[in-house]
Amino acid sequence: MTTDDLVELRRDLHRHPEPAWREFYTTARIVDELETRDLDSLYVGREVLDEGSRAGVPDDDELDAWLDRAREAGAREDILDRLKGGYTGALAVAERGDGPTVALRVDIDALPITESESDDHAPAAGGFRSEREGYMHACGHDAHTAIGLGVLDRILESDFAGTLKVFFQPGEERIVGGEPMANSGRLDDVDYLFAVHVGLDHPSGEVVAGIDGFLAVSQFEAEFRGASAHAGARPEEGRNAMQAAATAIENLYGIPRHGDGATRVNVGVVEGGTATNIVAERVRIECEVRGETTDLMEYMDERAERVLESAAEMHGCEVERTQAGRAPSAVSDPELRDVVSRAASETEGVVSVLDADHLGGSEDATYLMRAVQEHGGEAAYVGIGTDHPGGHHTPTFDVDEASIGVGIDVVSRAILELGGHGD
Amino acid sequence: MTTDDLVELRRDLHRHPEPAWREFYTTARIVDELETRDLDSLYVGREVLDEGSRAGVPDDDELDAWLDRAREAGAREDILDRLKGGYTGALAVAERGDGPTVALRVDIDALPITESESDDHAPAAGGFRSEREGYMHACGHDAHTAIGLGVLDRILESDFAGTLKVFFQPGEERIVGGEPMANSGRLDDVDYLFAVHVGLDHPSGEVVAGIDGFLAVSQFEAEFRGASAHAGARPEEGRNAMQAAATAIENLYGIPRHGDGATRVNVGVVEGGTATNIVAERVRIECEVRGETTDLMEYMDERAERVLESAAEMHGCEVERTQAGRAPSAVSDPELRDVVSRAASETEGVVSVLDADHLGGSEDATYLMRAVQEHGGEAAYVGIGTDHPGGHHTPTFDVDEASIGVGIDVVSRAILELGGHGD
Amino acid sequence: MTTDDLVELRRDLHRHPEPAWREFYTTARIVDELETRDLDSLYVGREVLDEGSRAGVPDDDELDAWLDRAREAGAREDILDRLKGGYTGALAVAERGDGPTVALRVDIDALPITESESDDHAPAAGGFRSEREGYMHACGHDAHTAIGLGVLDRILESDFAGTLKVFFQPGEERIVGGEPMANSGRLDDVDYLFAVHVGLDHPSGEVVAGIDGFLAVSQFEAEFRGASAHAGARPEEGRNAMQAAATAIENLYGIPRHGDGATRVNVGVVEGGTATNIVAERVRIECEVRGETTDLMEYMDERAERVLESAAEMHGCEVERTQAGRAPSAVSDPELRDVVSRAASETEGVVSVLDADHLGGSEDATYLMRAVQEHGGEAAYVGIGTDHPGGHHTPTFDVDEASIGVGIDVVSRAILELGGHGD
Amino acid sequence: MTTDDLVELRRDLHRHPEPAWREFYTTARIVDELETRDLDSLYVGREVLDEGSRAGVPDDDELDAWLDRAREAGAREDILDRLKGGYTGALAVAERGDGPTVALRVDIDALPITESESDDHAPAAGGFRSEREGYMHACGHDAHTAIGLGVLDRILESDFAGTLKVFFQPGEERIVGGEPMANSGRLDDVDYLFAVHVGLDHPSGEVVAGIDGFLAVSQFEAEFRGASAHAGARPEEGRNAMQAAATAIENLYGIPRHGDGATRVNVGVVEGGTATNIVAERVRIECEVRGETTDLMEYMDERAERVLESAAEMHGCEVERTQAGRAPSAVSDPELRDVVSRAASETEGVVSVLDADHLGGSEDATYLMRAVQEHGGEAAYVGIGTDHPGGHHTPTFDVDEASIGVGIDVVSRAILELGGHGD
Repeated sequence: MTTDDLVELRRDLHRHPEPAWREFYTTARIVDELETRDLDSLYVGREVLDEGSRAGVPDDDELDAWLDRAREAGAREDILDRLKGGYTGALAVAERGDGPTVALRVDIDALPITESESDDHAPAAGGFRSEREGYMHACGHDAHTAIGLGVLDRILESDFAGTLKVFFQPGEERIVGGEPMANSGRLDDVDYLFAVHVGLDHPSGEVVAGIDGFLAVSQFEAEFRGASAHAGARPEEGRNAMQAAATAIENLYGIPRHGDGATRVNVGVVEGGTATNIVAERVRIECEVRGETTDLMEYMDERAERVLESAAEMHGCEVERTQAGRAPSAVSDPELRDVVSRAASETEGVVSVLDADHLGGSEDATYLMRAVQEHGGEAAYVGIGTDHPGGHHTPTFDVDEASIGVGIDVVSRAILELGGHGD
Repeated sequence: MTTDDLVELRRDLHRHPEPAWREFYTTARIVDELETRDLDSLYVGREVLDEGSRAGVPDDDELDAWLDRAREAGAREDILDRLKGGYTGALAVAERGDGPTVALRVDIDALPITESESDDHAPAAGGFRSEREGYMHACGHDAHTAIGLGVLDRILESDFAGTLKVFFQPGEERIVGGEPMANSGRLDDVDYLFAVHVGLDHPSGEVVAGIDGFLAVSQFEAEFRGASAHAGARPEEGRNAMQAAATAIENLYGIPRHGDGATRVNVGVVEGGTATNIVAERVRIECEVRGETTDLMEYMDERAERVLESAAEMHGCEVERTQAGRAPSAVSDPELRDVVSRAASETEGVVSVLDADHLGGSEDATYLMRAVQEHGGEAAYVGIGTDHPGGHHTPTFDVDEASIGVGIDVVSRAILELGGHGD
Repeated sequence: MTTDDLVELRRDLHRHPEPAWREFYTTARIVDELETRDLDSLYVGREVLDEGSRAGVPDDDELDAWLDRAREAGAREDILDRLKGGYTGALAVAERGDGPTVALRVDIDALPITESESDDHAPAAGGFRSEREGYMHACGHDAHTAIGLGVLDRILESDFAGTLKVFFQPGEERIVGGEPMANSGRLDDVDYLFAVHVGLDHPSGEVVAGIDGFLAVSQFEAEFRGASAHAGARPEEGRNAMQAAATAIENLYGIPRHGDGATRVNVGVVEGGTATNIVAERVRIECEVRGETTDLMEYMDERAERVLESAAEMHGCEVERTQAGRAPSAVSDPELRDVVSRAASETEGVVSVLDADHLGGSEDATYLMRAVQEHGGEAAYVGIGTDHPGGHHTPTFDVDEASIGVGIDVVSRAILELGGHGD
Repeated sequence: MTTDDLVELRRDLHRHPEPAWREFYTTARIVDELETRDLDSLYVGREVLDEGSRAGVPDDDELDAWLDRAREAGAREDILDRLKGGYTGALAVAERGDGPTVALRVDIDALPITESESDDHAPAAGGFRSEREGYMHACGHDAHTAIGLGVLDRILESDFAGTLKVFFQPGEERIVGGEPMANSGRLDDVDYLFAVHVGLDHPSGEVVAGIDGFLAVSQFEAEFRGASAHAGARPEEGRNAMQAAATAIENLYGIPRHGDGATRVNVGVVEGGTATNIVAERVRIECEVRGETTDLMEYMDERAERVLESAAEMHGCEVERTQAGRAPSAVSDPELRDVVSRAASETEGVVSVLDADHLGGSEDATYLMRAVQEHGGEAAYVGIGTDHPGGHHTPTFDVDEASIGVGIDVVSRAILELGGHGD
């Protein structure tokens, strides 16, 4: 694929943003492309996902609706068949003789954000604004997907000796896709793993060789269920889910800080009750805890659990906690970071190379990184700068499409440095 | 109108339930009927509502949608014109010579409840189930409207000497219609006021001469507005509306009890925040406070105000409080209660007469009762028992239609006792 | 005893105020007096207390210190011997032939309040200010004791036929003396019980025939125990009793109001923690709940228990709840109230008789009242007005000593009306 | 002074532990010693303290009591006269020709901890256990004082060219002595500052060249004042300081974490209210906040202020915040750390030298360090390992007295390296 083709692909994906486990059009588009390559293996959906590790899968109605949309947008029916049940994502494997197994992971999902219609917003002006109202590629995963295909093509054309695996991962935004992919067994033989992300406030021309400072994270929903009652006539008959939730919220934020490092807690969404004069039977909160290390995240998680249970009990309620996404912390290996750093320095269009940067957020690429590292491999999370007018996760986010080519160049060059060279 | 006609009318209204300030079909139907009577005055909409006292009026889109539905259901266009802007309700005045001015108030609005489709539910089996999905006459106001018209007819046919006023009040369920009607000036000359309610757990054949124990109530919404921030990277930049709301909820329930009598507080609805990893910018709660007396309600109201303001300040937020419904407490006058008691004792079909009962809830008929009492008049809130399979405000609520006739008999007889008799 | 003697006695007791279970001097003084009367039985200390019902007994050091003070003040050693272990209080029984068993209960304990030294304060000016610094008869129990002896003498001198029992009850202020006395079995044969209280904002010359509106009450201490930790270095190792207590306090005040009647809750004392930089290992709160009925108090008590347990669990702490005083609600019987009313009307010095009044506080005479009522007897709680410069429980409280005579007159007259008359 | 003399001095100080601003005996003992040296200046009490920076000074009664104890223990009256009002601490200055101005800061105060009486506890077995019951040198400041004198003597005996200043600082444990000493102007000309601390979990023979990771800290008391009321009869008349304090405590712990680094918050002490049945008029809490940087501490401080104010307002109370101790963060300068490191390596008895360590607590030596650094000087906080049986701030803490000599050696050697050498 030419760079123009990849830009075209990126724009097509941009028009069809799909959230976690609903990347039907996206996966079908990727697989359709991959089938035209000379690959040794192509794994789709459940072939690259561990069943037991999946969380946050929508119900059938929701999945069907998105399947229909994918179908209407022209996705191939035979591929969609393989994705039913929300088994999205794919893995391309190219075996190119003796040499290390090198992997690239790109994420493919989109966000529930309504895209800007402003003429200042290139996708709107350029005619490739989201066609899925309320959803948007506002974090550049459309560009990541293009980079994944571009790197694959570049290596297929090269004298790379070894095995290349490109993982197209679903559900990063909800941090639900990394764990099932990491647990699929497909990473166990990987010697080197690159993950790649555009932007992150780095301008076009800047590359970060290895990003660190991922906070381990656990996201969950808690639903408090009590009993309703007439607030005027029989307040004592209520088992008040509103009071339970309020007590939980206050005490979640009060979980003690930890001497070993940074922790975080947030209750981001609350919703419940039916009427002013009715004691609320049900209140639902969506929360997250984070930690500078996985241990710290787990410390927060256990404390949160206790707060939720006790707050429910206090008001005669029950609470059901549903795990949503979860991701460990991870670090980029210095050696691999050096490889990227050298590769970036030699890449045209790169004007600045940073060894490292601190993310301060969370990412479930960490699952894949740790899977590789636990098997003795190395991993690096590479940042490819891109001028983005709006911030990540905002309606005016966009990427400088020139950075797609830069990303392909840098990552391919690093892979080639690692791979033995055939003759 | 014959009793059969009134039952027919009640069923028609039952099929067209309309909530506060959207009683377009209902009012048009009432006015259409009233125009065929020999009345001295007929006031419609804003002619019987004080503009400055209205609260909880929906926005234009919502009003227009309900106007359209009324139109489609066959409401007269010329009457609808007079109701535009949500000015619903009506007042019929019959001047019948020298004598006291006696008034009857009935309420006409419905609830946002989805009516049962069960065959055991008479309106479903009988073909007059709600045609406005999600709305329902689940508190008997359809029967009240029929009683209002029936009493009017009975007095018009009688030798009653004096003036009769029948108020068809909108918006009782949201306690927003009573105050503007009470402040309209149309009650200032009323010597005796009856309000009437069916059911309230009293069986068919039982009458309560004068109900007391209305809790004064104030309902309001509070919206906390702060600033969002990324919960992982920049928690300190948030001004957390979630924490403000939780602190408010906990402390609202903690407003001290009062030595002078019963108080109540409830936060019935909560909703806010956008995502697990974002510090919530906006959280909204819907609350109410009540008191055994209006003073007690106001004590609670003031304390609640302080809690809301301080909770917002504590977390760097602002809070906007929007008053929803509000109603004072009131008592039935003993003398008028005696009149009803005597009238009920002499009424066929009445097997049990209670002097008084304690409601324990709120009602904005209290505004009208107090308006009359403050001008030196007397008021009684009359309960007409009716067997109701489901409780008030539940999907299977229904009335025993025989109680419509009983209600008309009891109230008419009481009015006739009060009125001088012409010759 | 003459009225002068009784005033002298009251002043002696006023100089020697003693709190719950430490009424050694007081009991010794009473018993010393009683032994000079012609009684049929005289029960002291544990003879009139149910062992299993005692609460709030101080430790041995405290008891010994007060025993020493009583000894130094001249209490008889042989009587003190019978009171050891804090078994204070007494019961005088006079059997006077056939007739009903009539009982009078007076309370004898004092408060931990420092008495005024002002010249405007009669005990200070008159030389009978408290000699137990920090303690004071600030609720008139010294006068009650005098009334108890006065009534006994009056009946002994009369032709009363029946049995008279005068209970001198300890520990009313801490509501710990009523229950063990009620459960002692000594009230089981009582047909009529009077309790008497001076003041309560009624002036000299006013009598209340039967006071009602006692709130049932339960007082308890809760000690939260967690684990300390250095708040800077290891905050996560703490199990924070401070957070547990704060959560408990907020949620105790938030226990839902009850549709059946008035409830109360208060956390009156808090204390705990050792240093600013140490996570608190121990925080103690002293609380009470009340209810218009005993059921309502028990509702509050159960909810409070749940709040305490859950708040402790939430922060990894344990909580120990220690019951302090407890008293049910009670009502004065109308028939007996009528007897008092008549008696008061005929008493010289009484200028105003109220049938009833509403206390709004708590009193453990209710235990004795209910014990009598449960056995088929009747009870009335009689208020004897007295001008009191300062309010009850304040440093300048005092009684108009003339009301002692009025109290004796009214109660004796009522007893005589009930008793058959010998010949 | 010989090492034996210094050990003797340390034991004498150990027997006379004195808390912040009450180090009368200690200062008198130090000054008495210093007067026998050949010093150029000797500043005492207010001569080395900035008046406006003092906080946490006890009241006169408390000061007088400790003055009396010092007098009884044999402190010189003429020196005590200079310390009146709690102006403790001293500064010795030796001008030794051209060369840098080098300073050493040692702290001299003790803790409110009851010392162990166990035979396993050397001071108890050795007869130099605390004679001030309830107070104890449980952090080694007695050893620090000895080191301060030892270093002074060593330099006086040496060919050091320059100026040496030894600061004997009061009130470190309450972090109240550092700021007034730092603001006294006496540090403005200092080129190099050493602070020294024994132990900190480093064993005898280990030296830490420069400790970092001081958390900036602010300690304060907040007193909530409302209005009392009878909790049964008139709960609504209370302005409940208990609820205000509980709300404050919950929300203090909920102050958002900060993306820039570690923060801390603790409410370590609570106390208030008078009786179970009285709405609490007054509740007092003692709190602290910390931050990895001074900015972070100030962020916490401002948020805490807002929480306190709003919590008071919410319950109709007022709050008075009294600043107790306060200290910034600080870092050891690498160059000076290297000097110490080299010195330690050459010192007999030192078996292990660490370049740096992370304290994780707070220290008001940071005020002095920053004062020097702001004037262009350098500072290092040196750790001298010592085997200590019990942890710091525990009843069985003790020092290995051999470490006194090691401390003197290491610090003197470092000072000599810095000083030019006279001839």
